[in-house]
Amino acid sequence: MAQPVLIGGQWREANASSVFRAENPATQEPMDEEYPVSSWEDCDEALGCAAAAAIAMRKLTGDAIANFMEKYADRIEARKDDLVAMANAETALPVSPRLGDVELPRTTGQLRQAAAAARDGSWRQLTIDTAANIRSGLAPLGPIAVFGPNNFPFAFGSISGGDFTAAIAAGNPVIAKANSSHPATTRIFAEEAQAAAEETGMPAGVVQLIYRTAHEDGERLVADARLGGVGYTGARGAGLKLKAAADTVGVPIYLELSSINPVVILPGALAERNDDLQQEFTGSCLMGAGQFCTNPGLVVVVGDDNGEQFVAGVAEKFAAAPVGTLLSRGVASLLANSVSQLREAGAECLVGDADGGGQGHSRANTLLRVTGEQFVSNSEVMQTEAFGNESLMVVVADIDQVCAVMDGLEGNLTGCIYSAADGSDDEAYDRVADHLRPHVGRLLNDKMPTGVAVSEAMNHGGPFPATGHPGFTAVGIPSSLVRFASLHCFDAVRPHRLPACLQDKNPTGSTWRRIDGQWTTDDVGG
Amino acid sequence: MAQPVLIGGQWREANASSVFRAENPATQEPMDEEYPVSSWEDCDEALGCAAAAAIAMRKLTGDAIANFMEKYADRIEARKDDLVAMANAETALPVSPRLGDVELPRTTGQLRQAAAAARDGSWRQLTIDTAANIRSGLAPLGPIAVFGPNNFPFAFGSISGGDFTAAIAAGNPVIAKANSSHPATTRIFAEEAQAAAEETGMPAGVVQLIYRTAHEDGERLVADARLGGVGYTGARGAGLKLKAAADTVGVPIYLELSSINPVVILPGALAERNDDLQQEFTGSCLMGAGQFCTNPGLVVVVGDDNGEQFVAGVAEKFAAAPVGTLLSRGVASLLANSVSQLREAGAECLVGDADGGGQGHSRANTLLRVTGEQFVSNSEVMQTEAFGNESLMVVVADIDQVCAVMDGLEGNLTGCIYSAADGSDDEAYDRVADHLRPHVGRLLNDKMPTGVAVSEAMNHGGPFPATGHPGFTAVGIPSSLVRFASLHCFDAVRPHRLPACLQDKNPTGSTWRRIDGQWTTDDVGG
Repeated sequence: MAQPVLIGGQWREANASSVFRAENPATQEPMDEEYPVSSWEDCDEALGCAAAAAIAMRKLTGDAIANFMEKYADRIEARKDDLVAMANAETALPVSPRLGDVELPRTTGQLRQAAAAARDGSWRQLTIDTAANIRSGLAPLGPIAVFGPNNFPFAFGSISGGDFTAAIAAGNPVIAKANSSHPATTRIFAEEAQAAAEETGMPAGVVQLIYRTAHEDGERLVADARLGGVGYTGARGAGLKLKAAADTVGVPIYLELSSINPVVILPGALAERNDDLQQEFTGSCLMGAGQFCTNPGLVVVVGDDNGEQFVAGVAEKFAAAPVGTLLSRGVASLLANSVSQLREAGAECLVGDADGGGQGHSRANTLLRVTGEQFVSNSEVMQTEAFGNESLMVVVADIDQVCAVMDGLEGNLTGCIYSAADGSDDEAYDRVADHLRPHVGRLLNDKMPTGVAVSEAMNHGGPFPATGHPGFTAVGIPSSLVRFASLHCFDAVRPHRLPACLQDKNPTGSTWRRIDGQWTTDDVGG
Repeated sequence: MAQPVLIGGQWREANASSVFRAENPATQEPMDEEYPVSSWEDCDEALGCAAAAAIAMRKLTGDAIANFMEKYADRIEARKDDLVAMANAETALPVSPRLGDVELPRTTGQLRQAAAAARDGSWRQLTIDTAANIRSGLAPLGPIAVFGPNNFPFAFGSISGGDFTAAIAAGNPVIAKANSSHPATTRIFAEEAQAAAEETGMPAGVVQLIYRTAHEDGERLVADARLGGVGYTGARGAGLKLKAAADTVGVPIYLELSSINPVVILPGALAERNDDLQQEFTGSCLMGAGQFCTNPGLVVVVGDDNGEQFVAGVAEKFAAAPVGTLLSRGVASLLANSVSQLREAGAECLVGDADGGGQGHSRANTLLRVTGEQFVSNSEVMQTEAFGNESLMVVVADIDQVCAVMDGLEGNLTGCIYSAADGSDDEAYDRVADHLRPHVGRLLNDKMPTGVAVSEAMNHGGPFPATGHPGFTAVGIPSSLVRFASLHCFDAVRPHRLPACLQDKNPTGSTWRRIDGQWTTDDVGG
């Protein structure tokens, strides 16, 4: 029998139209457990329970929500061995350091940081105008549907990761849609989340889990009037369909879609530290078989001797590096297709573009090459994302052509510029940065984009189609919480009826509020 | 010959497919001047110029932008007589106090407040993490298309009002689409804006003006890759078409659409001050012939003796009050249609629903009535906005039914609850507020919604379909600026390459920044 879904605080049999199994990508064998494809009835019931939970959650203090999140983090740590083993089986991501020593601590760290933010309340952008007697701040948006990606089963998981954590900390119930590649990992998280919710007195339906639905039911779910918002991380096509559905009814949907994360390496930097840069780039690009949303999929160098040396050196390193296992059969197939598209458009294959080479689902580390003219004259196709252990080198004539390549870019999460330490690239830097900056959410210097620090100054976001709105970040606490909030204003509302965070007295003694134009932790009039 | 358009800093003949004239709504005579309906070529050229202006504007300091805005405000004041006379002729809004003494000072006040915000930079949500060496803040979004409404030719005008002001202050060029009801008023503003731009050295194309386009060109304009964002205030149908177009390409579009602004008057308040409340409601509802986005179009009272006395008293006052002139033939016709829809759905007409009664385009002050059951059983139709001097009284059985009426509401800009001063309504208030709060952007106590203070704590926004996103306000400075910005993050970017506002030294000495979790106006390390 298929595994049960979690709806309204109960694990119960799904109303399933069919079942599916995940596959172990390293062994290419199906996993043991069957999971249900829920019919609309499950979605409908989850929405009803979430709406009721949202009303109950509006009455909770930030402290109560924080207690739940911290308890959940504790329970995740207690269940660490199960989680790591299951995620390894479902994704082939290494147990150590990746899953056990990096991603799991990051996940519990996010939960605890967000718990602190919920308790503190400074994230609410509290604003008080004493003369006009108007007060405002961010309030929960309502039930949030979270669709997690395949590549971070913990830190971006639909019931454990960044969107989940931000939505809950902002005071919203979550309807999690598991990623079909790792349903069992998601189920373990849901077990611990539900247990933590019960232990800390959360309303039934604060966390709910559905494994999969028909596409049309997913679109119906995100366009339902009972929903407050959506967080989606994953493939562009599916994301844009959900966006279209949500947009028709004005449900805010925050997407993280494709990004090729351009890296420009200026001539002076290559003259100065060519070998180091080959190493650094290769490491970043092939880490985790390249399956990061911030994987550097496009590198631009000027085709002088140093540029050619860089390209040749990277090709050698790609050929020599071990080949990682891809997350799924689908990832391997999409990667092959994307590389084919790039080659058909004229990209030269320097190394790779062959199936296998690693354990299970895998493809040879692949490096492609085009000229600046080729890229500029066909930029839409040339920036096709090839998710996995691949990158495209654009070898250009000069800095003008670097700028032209930048001008043709769609929105990306990140963009990097490497320049000489001695300042000799500074003029080129300024020109390139002008053309790159508008297309990326995060601009880096002399650093690969694959690290995404959980910092309140982080922007893991960017212009469309990297995300659905360029004003928001999916990583960083408390900044990522604001996505799942609506602005509530109180005009001449009697003092005792105001939410605690907008009353004269600072509710914690340390919550930041903007009072008459000044940020302060004081009481009003204090 | 048709009036010229303003494109790329030049007043030039439009590439027009046809021409139109506005009408004086008081005399019902067409105005003298002809205005062009621009073809796509004008839009295309404006987009190209705006894209170039956006690049130039990114190099400007906040001070330079502030100088422009202040010069423009001065020039508006110097041209006040022309503006007021023309707006009066095109809209029939009274010269005094409305246009000359309220709306014009509000408009220049907004410009000067926003100029101060641009100069100061605190609106940018500047965030610095010194340990991770990551810094972020809001940056200009790119060219903004502004579609202004018919009812505020100054304060929400497409080249003078709130969206224009916020977009410019955030560092973006504006392509203004005039409202077809008051093209000449808009032209005068554009003349002064362009002159101020030239005097203060702004790039050509910082402000551009097109009067009208075919609907399909408007949709093409908002979906153009050169555009950064859109501000639209107006009718729901046209706004949703623009939203659909912009959404497909991820152009952020901020809409202010219909809102009926529910007012609940609790029994104790009516027992305490029935006559005053009749007076206050009638004044708010009929002011400016009810043509405010926050006009109270729905009133809920319990049908006890005091409730019936309130309804009867308001009906008498509506019948006795002078009838204002409506903004246009179209407004009069839509108002008649909406009232017909409500009556066909079963609303009883207590007074009004007749053409004429005032000067020019006008309709009798209209008060409709339904029971709570009628409203709840047909809430979609019953909340049809009847823009103008009309309101619908919902006479309910009890507080439970008030809550049921609230549950059926779409998103609104505002919601008001009147309650007894002696606290006797407090229990009912709490119940009603729970059901009303999620549906409105601004909750008021004992106050009509028609005043919208330019306060940084204001929320002139709300859940869909009142607006397109519940997290943003269209009024309030600096809060309204954030709509027209994207989040830019700088990760390990060398110090001298950072924007001034993110360098260690506080650029003004008084700009608020969040450094390592603490809001401060100090330098980093200072």
